[in-house]
Parts: sequence; structure tokens; C-alpha cells
Amino acid sequence: MSTPDPVHPTSVRLRVFSLNCWGIRYLSKHCARRYAMIGDLLAKEQYDVVLLQEVWSEKDFDALRKKLASSLPFGHYFKSGVIGSGLAIFSKHRIQDTFRYRYSLNGYPYMLNHGDWFGGKAVGMAVLNIGDTTAHFYVTHLHAEYSREKDSYLPHRVVQAWELQHFIRYTSAEADLVVLAGDFNMHPTDLGTRLLRTYADLRDAYVETPKFDGCEDGGTMIAENPNNDMAPPEKGLRIDYILFKGSSRLELHCESMSTTKGSVPDHAFPYSDHEALTAELRLDRVPQDGVSQDGSKGMGPLARGSDRTAAKLAELVDIVTEARTEVKVGLHCAQGMCYTAARTGVMGLVLLLLELAIAAVPWLALGAPGPFPSVSFYLLGALCFLILLTTALLYLFYTMEIKSLQEAEDQMRQAVGCLQERLRGFPLASPGPPRLGPPGKERRPGGVGPEE
Amino acid sequence: MSTPDPVHPTSVRLRVFSLNCWGIRYLSKHCARRYAMIGDLLAKEQYDVVLLQEVWSEKDFDALRKKLASSLPFGHYFKSGVIGSGLAIFSKHRIQDTFRYRYSLNGYPYMLNHGDWFGGKAVGMAVLNIGDTTAHFYVTHLHAEYSREKDSYLPHRVVQAWELQHFIRYTSAEADLVVLAGDFNMHPTDLGTRLLRTYADLRDAYVETPKFDGCEDGGTMIAENPNNDMAPPEKGLRIDYILFKGSSRLELHCESMSTTKGSVPDHAFPYSDHEALTAELRLDRVPQDGVSQDGSKGMGPLARGSDRTAAKLAELVDIVTEARTEVKVGLHCAQGMCYTAARTGVMGLVLLLLELAIAAVPWLALGAPGPFPSVSFYLLGALCFLILLTTALLYLFYTMEIKSLQEAEDQMRQAVGCLQERLRGFPLASPGPPRLGPPGKERRPGGVGPEE
Repeated sequence: MSTPDPVHPTSVRLRVFSLNCWGIRYLSKHCARRYAMIGDLLAKEQYDVVLLQEVWSEKDFDALRKKLASSLPFGHYFKSGVIGSGLAIFSKHRIQDTFRYRYSLNGYPYMLNHGDWFGGKAVGMAVLNIGDTTAHFYVTHLHAEYSREKDSYLPHRVVQAWELQHFIRYTSAEADLVVLAGDFNMHPTDLGTRLLRTYADLRDAYVETPKFDGCEDGGTMIAENPNNDMAPPEKGLRIDYILFKGSSRLELHCESMSTTKGSVPDHAFPYSDHEALTAELRLDRVPQDGVSQDGSKGMGPLARGSDRTAAKLAELVDIVTEARTEVKVGLHCAQGMCYTAARTGVMGLVLLLLELAIAAVPWLALGAPGPFPSVSFYLLGALCFLILLTTALLYLFYTMEIKSLQEAEDQMRQAVGCLQERLRGFPLASPGPPRLGPPGKERRPGGVGPEE
Repeated sequence: MSTPDPVHPTSVRLRVFSLNCWGIRYLSKHCARRYAMIGDLLAKEQYDVVLLQEVWSEKDFDALRKKLASSLPFGHYFKSGVIGSGLAIFSKHRIQDTFRYRYSLNGYPYMLNHGDWFGGKAVGMAVLNIGDTTAHFYVTHLHAEYSREKDSYLPHRVVQAWELQHFIRYTSAEADLVVLAGDFNMHPTDLGTRLLRTYADLRDAYVETPKFDGCEDGGTMIAENPNNDMAPPEKGLRIDYILFKGSSRLELHCESMSTTKGSVPDHAFPYSDHEALTAELRLDRVPQDGVSQDGSKGMGPLARGSDRTAAKLAELVDIVTEARTEVKVGLHCAQGMCYTAARTGVMGLVLLLLELAIAAVPWLALGAPGPFPSVSFYLLGALCFLILLTTALLYLFYTMEIKSLQEAEDQMRQAVGCLQERLRGFPLASPGPPRLGPPGKERRPGGVGPEE
């Protein structure tokens, strides 16, 4: 935290840093040397909280931790999946508690060239007490976008964004201060980003800051970065974010923001293939009489006493409906793949049984010559068996994918129903019986049926 | 909800029902007829919220939903895993929102005879507005205990209980009323039950109620139940629960509780192999001036202004330490299994290469007779291949299990550290810099190092 400032003497400042470290050992270019550079930077700069992504090896986390023992003494590495989640947090303030939500969907295990599935992508949460302020920091990394035109992972990423907003909305109710940082792999106007910002009431540091020093349009994947082999467009892409919100007890402002610009002075290569983000946040405590009576603090449109405008509700309905459509497209694909796996499996089984039957005939006829030369017989048998096994595993996988997509779609349908009811001016209340609060908010009988 | 009562005229009553339905189509005895009986019961009795487990088929949920369209018009089925989570909720009050957390660990996919892994066990959450009360209902089903003496799933169940308390603690901060019901597969004094009750501040309806009508010692798995083939001890086991907590805005009391007793009048068999639980809760709103200034409401020992006694903190330290030990035992086993899988895989690979080398010699020597008869050659090759594939899958699985166990252990270590610091009377604050609240709560420099 920087020193108190004469204009806002009671304010506190927090410096938050976020970087996708591109830390695939032996595969990422200059991995070890880049980690050394990152460690030097973090040790030198006075950050309060550092949120890292793609720290794929725990050894690298441990090395960073050792290096940062005095400047950022508290840290946590979120373990998940086969390789790990890649998510890490370092903090100057003691980490009180951590929690992790692993996304239901995260690509396909057989897409070895993409490998996202093995990462066990998740959102990590760390609870910090900064003075009397309860701060919840979230770090995440969503599924990569390998092709903008034909993005087969879009439904997965949308479900990840859906689960992320849900997780943040519900777990941040007690927090005075919420910060979410990470590599979303989504552009600022993409569906998932809008969903996240609007539903979880998060503000974009890049949009909010009056003082920005960084790449054009806030790009974090830029052509000038020599590590970057994804060939982003000339103007760069903004896919890494620092989002935040305050509460009724704490006002939050982004005073300045900066990104690295594709190169590091005195070094031959930059820290990563992404640019690093730094945001300076100013925290102003709201006098205690400003606390709302019901304690609601921006839990989204479902919070009691929420003063969301109809326009914002309508926007949310549109966004969630769009997300639902995307999930339905994914569901359609997954169902097709599941059906194909089942059909291929049945064909493999029929072929295997047929082969066994053909082999059994001469065997039963005792000693007659086999209809197959033995090599092709065994090879065919092995092939059938392999088909059966593979399709069985795929069938299992697609069934789980379908279940997760259906769950997200159900939740979205429910959310749209509730949002629309609010929009129509219906009070959201239970049918008939006595209530705890003041009367007069009866639900019109038969007005809304069960949400199906 | 029942009618207002003369003693507590402003109180509201909620009737909550929970049942493990044992709904495995074609395998569970009298499955269809039992569902019909359950449907009749739910349609007849005036329940507010019904929380079901082991509804393995969505078709059965849909049939129940149709039957309960007028009495319990709102419902949600939580989809997860290969088969589903088995979790369902029906409500008289509109369901505003649902969310689901799938446990990181849930048995082993190759334990087909147990099959828990395929269920994708989770905790489902439903947000209800009951008048002005925001109520969060949670339904869950933890991994079964197949052998009390040699319970190889204990670390998994402990991690599930750990994640469950974490999930409830953080997602219930805005709720006036929290109810958790389900089949925990744990006895009242088991580690997981204690962890859940103590850390998430939940009260046990069976313990709290002044009026109980049901089996001896609250048993929910009893020898008298003819569906029950698990042979519970004569006195029965209490493994199904309804837990609850209120908030600073709402006092909650369990007025009465009942369970079924192994048989149903006019029917040849009971509803399930478990007994059904019904709790009647009384809700009393606390006058608004009773709201604590900081808005903290039993978020556990990490809540601001928590007035937990040292005794309770010490108890928590003991419980979490015990849980950590259990997780460590699980970790040790998982690491052993992972090592065995790797070693067997390498042996399979060596054998395969050896066989190929032996086969290659005569092949290279053009036309010399093969050292193997072809049948055994191909069979051995197929076996080696199968070993390789199986061990690779097992290796992947155990690696993920280890990651999840390590994450839980890390979180527990962190929690114990924070709890112990509170116990020692250290205020939990950040090192040095300016703070938002009143001063005087400085952390003793060097008092506590990074939590490792």
C-alpha cells in the first residue's frame, strides 16, 4: 500500500497485479529465465496482492514463494485436475482462508494438442483481512479460444463464465471488497465478459481508470510481444482483466492502471506471452450510517432491496438468453457426439461378436482350417476391442458433458424467469400463506406457473 | 406453512421433508411403486420444502413433478456426473436461483459394484424467498460407507464434508435461514458430521427438537426396514440429517421432528431403505435494531466480530487437525496407488517392447520360424497394451485424486493456522501498513511467518 495522500487522507490504496505466466516447463520459451524476471519484478515492486495464472508447475510456485518470502510472505497455489489449475496468489496480507470452485466443463481430454482439460481450470478464492476490510480476491483462467471463427469451446467457456458469476455473487456477500483477475480468453464485448460484468456487478478497471499507461486499447495479447505465437491482430486483444466491486460499506475506485508493452528494459524477452496488468485501487470507507438496513450489497438482481433499473434487468435478460442459446448449441453438439459414440460402440461390438462367431464355427467343427489367417483375425479382434473401449469412455465423457450443459441451461432458464418476473413488476413472493414481513406483496394466484 | 399460533402470533412455520429415495431403476426393490407412494405422501402432506436424494432417474423426478404440480409447484433436479447427482428439491415457494457444487472426490470409477463415482455427488443449493425471508436450502448425499471397520472412502468423505462446510459458510452469508438436509453417510459423532456442525455453525434438528416421534436414537437406517439389506445394528444408525441455522435477523427453532418407522400403514413395504425425516421449524424475525452493526451472521470463526468462545475455537482446531490427519492418510494411499500404477505401466511397456524385439529378430532374419506360436504372441501383445492403457488411465485418475487431497490439506493447514492465531489472542491483521479501521490492532512483527 502506498502512503496516505493529502486529497484523500483516510483512503487506503491497494496495488493489484495479474499475469498469465505461460509457465509450461520445457515447452514455453525461456520459461525458467522468465520466472526469474517475474520474481525480480514482484520482489521489487510494492504490490499488495499478486494473482497469477498458468503457473503449471508447483515447483515454480515454490521457487517464487521462496524469493518473495519478505515482500509477499503469504501465498497459495490452487491444486486441481491432472496438472494443476495453474492459479496462484501471493499477498502482503495474511490469507485467512481459500476456496476453489472447479468448472464443470473444460474442453475434451482427447484434445491433447490443446490440453486445457488436463489443467482442471477453476476459480480460486482467497479471503484477506486488510485492516478492518474483508477482501475477497478471485483468480481464474478460462478455456482458451483457439479459433475465433470456429470456436468449438464457446459453450464450455460460456458455462465457465456462468459458474464464475454464480460463485462470485454468492461467496462475496460478506466481502467489503471484491477483485477478480485473470485470463478470461474473452474479448471485452464477448458474451461471457458481459455476463460476468453485468450479473456479478463487477467494474472493469481498464474502463474505470482515469489514468492508463499501456498498450493500445488495453491489449494484453499483442503482436509486438515476441513470445506470442498466436498471431493476434495488429491492434492486440484485451483478454486479461482486473474487475472489482465495493460494497455499501466501502467505495472503491481505480486510480490508475498499467500494462507491460511487449518488452522489458534490459531484458531480451518479455515476462510472458501475455502482458502483465497492474491496477491501483483506492478504498474509501463509507460512514457506518450509510449501511443499508437490509445489509444487501450488490448481490445482483436477486438481492433484497436491489435498486437495479428496468434497463439493467432487461439487459441481463438479453445476456442470459443469449448465453442459454449458446449452451443449447453446445448441448446439441454434445448429444450428437454422444449418439455417434454409442453407435460406433455398438458397431464395434457387433463386429467383435461376428468375428467370434466366424472363429467359433471351425472350432466347433473340430480341426477344420480357420477362415481367417491368424494375424488379421487377432488384429481385427484387437481393433474391435479398442473401438469398444474408446467409445465407452467417450460415451461416459459426453454423458457428463450433457449433464453439465443441461444443469447450466436449467439454471439460466430459471434466472431468466425470475428476471422477467421482476421486469413485469411482479413481486417475487411465495403463494398464499402467512409471511414474515409486512403484507401486501401477495403473488397473483396463477400468475406464474412452475418454471419449466 | 401451518396456521399462526396463539403463543407465537408473529411466527411462521416451515415444514421440511428429507428422504433418500433409493431410486435405482430396475435394481432397487419396488422402485416404481415406492415412487408412487412417495408422490402420494408429498401431495397429501403440507410440506413447504422437500429435499430428496438418490432420485437417480430424471424420469422419476419428472413424474413426481407432474404429480406435485399443485401442492409443490416449484422444483429443480441437480444434474451432474454420468448418472446425475440424485439430488432434487420441491418447494411450495418459488425457487429464485439454484447453484451446485460438485465434490472434488467421490470414490473410484473402477469400483463398479459401489458406483458412487458415477453419481457425480454434489451439494445443490436453492434460494427461496419466503415472504421477506431469504432462505437457502442445501441438499446433499455424501459417499457411502460400505465397511465401518475398513472404510477406504473415509478421506473422500472427509474432503466432501470439508468442501460442504466451506460452500455453505460462504454462500449463506446473505441468507436469513439456512437448511441443510440429506444422507451424510456419517454417524452423529463422526469426524465429518462434527466438522460440518461446528465449522458451519449448523444445529441438528434431532438434537434441538423438544418433540420427537420416530425410531430409537433417531435412527434412519433401521433393522426393521425390510428394504434394508445393509444389515444395520439392532438400534439402527442415524446417518440422515436436517441441520439448520438462523441469522442475526431471524431466530430459528425446531418445534418438532419425526421420522418414519420402517413401515407404512396400508402398504406392504416402506418408502425407501432409509427413513424419511420431517422437521417443523419456527421462524421468528428479530426486531431490526437487533441487527449487528457489522452485519456478521455466524459465518464461522472467520467472521468479523465473531463472538466464538475460546473453547469453541479449540474444538474447531482439534476437529480440523483430525480431518487433516485423515486427509494425509488418504494422500499416502493415493500416492502409493499412483506409484503402483506407474510401475505397472512401465513393466507393461517393457514387456511390450521385449516382445516386439523378440518378434523382430526372426522377421529381420527373413523367414526363420517365429519363436512364439502366433496365438500366445498376439494375446501377450494385447495384454501388454491393455496394461499400458489401464495404468495410464489409473495414473491420470490418481494424480487428480492427489491434487484434490493436497488442496484440501492445504486449506485445512491454513484454517488451523488462522484458528490457532485467534486462540493465541493474536488479532488477525496484515503486517505494518495503514489500515481502514481504528488502529491498535497491529500484528506483532515476526510473530507469524508465512503459513507453510
